[in-house]
Amino acid sequence: MADKSLRIGVVLSGCGVYDGAEIHEAVCTLLAIAKVGAVAVCYAPDIPQAHVVNHLSGQETGESRNVLVESARIARGKITALSEFSAGDVDALIFPGGFGAAKNLSDFAFKGADCSVNPQVVAAVAAMRAAGKPIGALCIAPAILAKILGQQGVELTIGNDPGTAAALESMGAVHRTTTHGEIIVDQGLKVVTSPCYMLDATLAQIAEGTENTVKALVGLAK
Amino acid sequence: MADKSLRIGVVLSGCGVYDGAEIHEAVCTLLAIAKVGAVAVCYAPDIPQAHVVNHLSGQETGESRNVLVESARIARGKITALSEFSAGDVDALIFPGGFGAAKNLSDFAFKGADCSVNPQVVAAVAAMRAAGKPIGALCIAPAILAKILGQQGVELTIGNDPGTAAALESMGAVHRTTTHGEIIVDQGLKVVTSPCYMLDATLAQIAEGTENTVKALVGLAK
Repeated sequence: MADKSLRIGVVLSGCGVYDGAEIHEAVCTLLAIAKVGAVAVCYAPDIPQAHVVNHLSGQETGESRNVLVESARIARGKITALSEFSAGDVDALIFPGGFGAAKNLSDFAFKGADCSVNPQVVAAVAAMRAAGKPIGALCIAPAILAKILGQQGVELTIGNDPGTAAALESMGAVHRTTTHGEIIVDQGLKVVTSPCYMLDATLAQIAEGTENTVKALVGLAK
Repeated sequence: MADKSLRIGVVLSGCGVYDGAEIHEAVCTLLAIAKVGAVAVCYAPDIPQAHVVNHLSGQETGESRNVLVESARIARGKITALSEFSAGDVDALIFPGGFGAAKNLSDFAFKGADCSVNPQVVAAVAAMRAAGKPIGALCIAPAILAKILGQQGVELTIGNDPGTAAALESMGAVHRTTTHGEIIVDQGLKVVTSPCYMLDATLAQIAEGTENTVKALVGLAK
């Protein structure tokens, strides 16, 4: 079990797989953090969502929603604007997946390798790197780290999708193919990634992948 | 491990603790179902939410959202309108908590013991009872079962809150005080309840309560 004083930041990107944070991955991350005896500290950027998707029909709606406000649903109201993030406040940082990572935290879903990343996300990752603290990313969220840390050749995984892997490699990342529950650890950059719902996974497999990721982050944070 | 063919219905009530299904309880329920090797089948009524609450500020917003559409966020789109529910399609049925159970599936949050329950929820519970199949309820959702099954003296728990317990008893239920992770099983009516976030719980304790509830449902379903 981890030191009880460990604090792990969780960057949410909305609430729902198609326009925000993937809810199962986010909750399993929070559960894995609780299980190792660490404390989860939730963050999200206070920005409009790229769009809102009706999760029953799959169609875009005309609504407007805020990433921080919707993320607060997963965090039960206990969440801080990402603009207030300080690497001194946490021992590790993790990005669950869902399209929110590729639509709200970055625009990878729209622009692929030509994407840009939200400046607050860039600043948070840079601050963690400068502090020598570990960073995790699940599902499609490793695309964010490929963009920010690609020039340093970050080693990571989004599972086994050839097109997505190629896009990440074109940003400089080294992609490793993985299956359910597996993680890739870049020891030098202290980056841990796992494919989660980038594969056709069961929720039990999602729980396994998030637990393995959180345990690796705890190991790197010590 | 349970028979792989077991199907457990999960009735969602939106997406977010203050105006819908409590997300942690809902996901932990789905995870517990996956872990016992059963299949989760999600349902929600196709009705407007009672209201929409900003989960960051706690304030009501002027928005209008639909219970089925928002529940689909938790279910990743795989969800059926509760109007199509048939007891023949599932081996057990479970109601996660959150204010949605007391605002959308019933109006217990507004009217207490004088509440009424959504007719589709009443019909689903009646159908399960008629089929002799077990029903579970977490957090505040036992209030729904107190209203429907109170005349039969259903035995259940919402934890240890005296006011809520008294309201349930005034509807005819027999309330048992419980703490984290504990369940109350009414063997005669095949009803299983657990307090979850009706107590000041950690997410690990929520996972424990949902797992114990699901395992008891599986035992009763055999």
